[in-house]
Amino acid sequence: MKKRQNLEKTVDRIIESYDRHGGINHIRGPNLPSREEIVETLESLITIIFPGFFTREVIDRDNVRFWVGAECSRIYPRIEDQINKSLRYFCLQWGDCRPDTDACLIEDLEACLVRARKIARALLRELPALRRVLFQDVQAHFTGDPAAKSLDEIILAYPGMLAISVYRIAHFLWRRQVPLLPRIMSEYAHTRTGIDIHPGARIGNHFMIDHGTGVVIGETTVIGDHVRIYQGVTLGALAVPEDAGEYRDVKRHPTIRDRVTIYSGATILGGKTVIGKGAVIGGNVWITRSVAPGAKVFGEPPALAIRT
Amino acid sequence: MKKRQNLEKTVDRIIESYDRHGGINHIRGPNLPSREEIVETLESLITIIFPGFFTREVIDRDNVRFWVGAECSRIYPRIEDQINKSLRYFCLQWGDCRPDTDACLIEDLEACLVRARKIARALLRELPALRRVLFQDVQAHFTGDPAAKSLDEIILAYPGMLAISVYRIAHFLWRRQVPLLPRIMSEYAHTRTGIDIHPGARIGNHFMIDHGTGVVIGETTVIGDHVRIYQGVTLGALAVPEDAGEYRDVKRHPTIRDRVTIYSGATILGGKTVIGKGAVIGGNVWITRSVAPGAKVFGEPPALAIRT
Amino acid sequence: MKKRQNLEKTVDRIIESYDRHGGINHIRGPNLPSREEIVETLESLITIIFPGFFTREVIDRDNVRFWVGAECSRIYPRIEDQINKSLRYFCLQWGDCRPDTDACLIEDLEACLVRARKIARALLRELPALRRVLFQDVQAHFTGDPAAKSLDEIILAYPGMLAISVYRIAHFLWRRQVPLLPRIMSEYAHTRTGIDIHPGARIGNHFMIDHGTGVVIGETTVIGDHVRIYQGVTLGALAVPEDAGEYRDVKRHPTIRDRVTIYSGATILGGKTVIGKGAVIGGNVWITRSVAPGAKVFGEPPALAIRT
Repeated sequence: MKKRQNLEKTVDRIIESYDRHGGINHIRGPNLPSREEIVETLESLITIIFPGFFTREVIDRDNVRFWVGAECSRIYPRIEDQINKSLRYFCLQWGDCRPDTDACLIEDLEACLVRARKIARALLRELPALRRVLFQDVQAHFTGDPAAKSLDEIILAYPGMLAISVYRIAHFLWRRQVPLLPRIMSEYAHTRTGIDIHPGARIGNHFMIDHGTGVVIGETTVIGDHVRIYQGVTLGALAVPEDAGEYRDVKRHPTIRDRVTIYSGATILGGKTVIGKGAVIGGNVWITRSVAPGAKVFGEPPALAIRT
Repeated sequence: MKKRQNLEKTVDRIIESYDRHGGINHIRGPNLPSREEIVETLESLITIIFPGFFTREVIDRDNVRFWVGAECSRIYPRIEDQINKSLRYFCLQWGDCRPDTDACLIEDLEACLVRARKIARALLRELPALRRVLFQDVQAHFTGDPAAKSLDEIILAYPGMLAISVYRIAHFLWRRQVPLLPRIMSEYAHTRTGIDIHPGARIGNHFMIDHGTGVVIGETTVIGDHVRIYQGVTLGALAVPEDAGEYRDVKRHPTIRDRVTIYSGATILGGKTVIGKGAVIGGNVWITRSVAPGAKVFGEPPALAIRT
Repeated sequence: MKKRQNLEKTVDRIIESYDRHGGINHIRGPNLPSREEIVETLESLITIIFPGFFTREVIDRDNVRFWVGAECSRIYPRIEDQINKSLRYFCLQWGDCRPDTDACLIEDLEACLVRARKIARALLRELPALRRVLFQDVQAHFTGDPAAKSLDEIILAYPGMLAISVYRIAHFLWRRQVPLLPRIMSEYAHTRTGIDIHPGARIGNHFMIDHGTGVVIGETTVIGDHVRIYQGVTLGALAVPEDAGEYRDVKRHPTIRDRVTIYSGATILGGKTVIGKGAVIGGNVWITRSVAPGAKVFGEPPALAIRT
């Protein structure tokens, strides 16, 4: 009896705290997209992109059409639903629509759904193009890593390939101004691989990330074709002011031109920093200014204190 | 026939090896807490702390009381059980109780259960206070990151928030001397985020960790309010002696005062190292001595060898 | 109606793209091993190695024989199946067998199965020996980390122990020339811990990795006994040529002798680099040449620019 009363009181206090700190709950707000749903859909998309690699069942010439058809039918409404929720969330919270005017609200929710349907369809239609560019990324990993035994090994076991696959899907949605969804996707890749690519970054073809743990590629980074990056590389912003607000929507992250290689642990900062075509940035180097095309930048071997 | 005999022999040898290397099995020992159970309970706690963010079902004004009540009823006995197992483990293995005296054993097991119940109840009662301080952490991430679009995005997609949420729950249990459990929780966060915060660390309010992969915050670290930390920062111990035993229970990790910012890859070591209020520690800087309040410490840009 | 036609067209285009970019699909190819199956089997192996640590059910003197027997019976055919798929994959894609000669093909597939059975059996038989060496690794973590409270905590919550356990299993298969499988295993550990140990590396006993996020140990690394490594350490290759192909099968990664300690963030590169017995490598140090036995190598504290 007493135990039950205790629990009741605890529950009451939690509910009260929901009322007080509105900022971290969505009880009155719009229905948020679901991380679990998004992750499941993302995994299905990757399964379709690399058929036969991540399924337990055998996919062959005879059943492939049924399998792709079934997968696409299954995930299409789920993608649409998650995009719709993301758009509605933004519309109700930040949009021009006023929830007090019923008419406006309904109109905008309609508009959200129409847009969600369009984007979901476009994403599925984009899959062949995504396959083409991801195949180039697989080839770049094979050319770039002496430890790679086959293209298949790269698809099955390279974290860089997973992170880049997720990035290319998330970036597609980012370009179409879908809120929340692309960032939830990129965080999934970050969790799985330790590679943190903001979906807003713009990245060319034949991209390779080896090992990858600790890589950070910021929102306004621009990367050309045939670029190679190793673990622990940061493409980041210079010092952030006390209040980051004044700094939003500015190009804060560097530009990396074609055929640049950046070795492990290097840090390249600043929105005006440009690494010229074909440059090589050595491991652990710290760079806040532009580097000429073709330059090779290494830290002077630091004086070592050796006691024997 | 032969195949079965082979398997029998293999099993026998494994069992024998259990007898020989007792240190890595718990067949005769007390019943350990279950990592899976702990992770599931932890995820439920975070779901209650951020209602509507991590559930597939819609939570609204009408059902919220039922939902919270049901969740709390469901996880309370599981938390109690895991705390009880952790306490009993310690009691039987390391405590003063002598398992050869039945009376003592029973008494202590009783005492464990009573204490487990108390702590489990206290944890649920702490949830509103945890929500308050975590809301401040969410705000700190928004103020600190120009790429953040909304508070919701931070809850849904920032690894720093997950790591800090888990840390605050684990630290609550750590302060009440629950063994094993807090470390299993912090390792869950480490796995998910690459952020390794020891539950013994003491951390103030408005804490921000951006990107976070590779962050290590040691057991005896003390961190003030409004501190900002970036990926790859280590708050660690100076050289560890050959046998770490003599070094246990000593303050080995630094003290970071209010409003300090520590940029990516910086390493701050030693139990006597104090970073003064408002100081800024630059990226990749290596510090083993105290820094005055308000100081800005940057590595002299290292000489770069540039070949063009 | 229109909607259905749209989907049909999308599916057709995806199928077409499967035909065009054969390199990233396995529709006509051999049946690849399944990552999910491999991960589940790996987790079972670790459960048998550390009985009572990762199961929800209680394992005691009375049921342990049944439990181990049941587990071994359950996973044996699954391991065999995955090894067989890996061998067949290699045999069909890269082997000497010519798929156009039916006889040859069948013979080789037979040979694959026989070899798979042999290796699967050997792996189960190796478990007692693996337990012995992993017990030494657990002890090394306890001796090496002042924050460790017990051996049990290390098994339950140290990412280094998980990464090393997976490495020792994967290396066993690597030595027997099983393709793909060992790398899928090591990537599982990488995902869970941020520690990337290539299964080809050779590592002695009493090995400790603390915290571990960002550690990279390359394919041709050789590590002695009683070595300690901290987060962010890279044992890697010097610059990789434009086309990595010419660089395969060469010793590209360093040799670390007995009782060496390598602190966080240090980078040691090159196949001819040898770190002598008992040497200590300081944090963040960058090394591309051999170090004498017993030497202590620290970066000269870099000049710091301090503004107050």
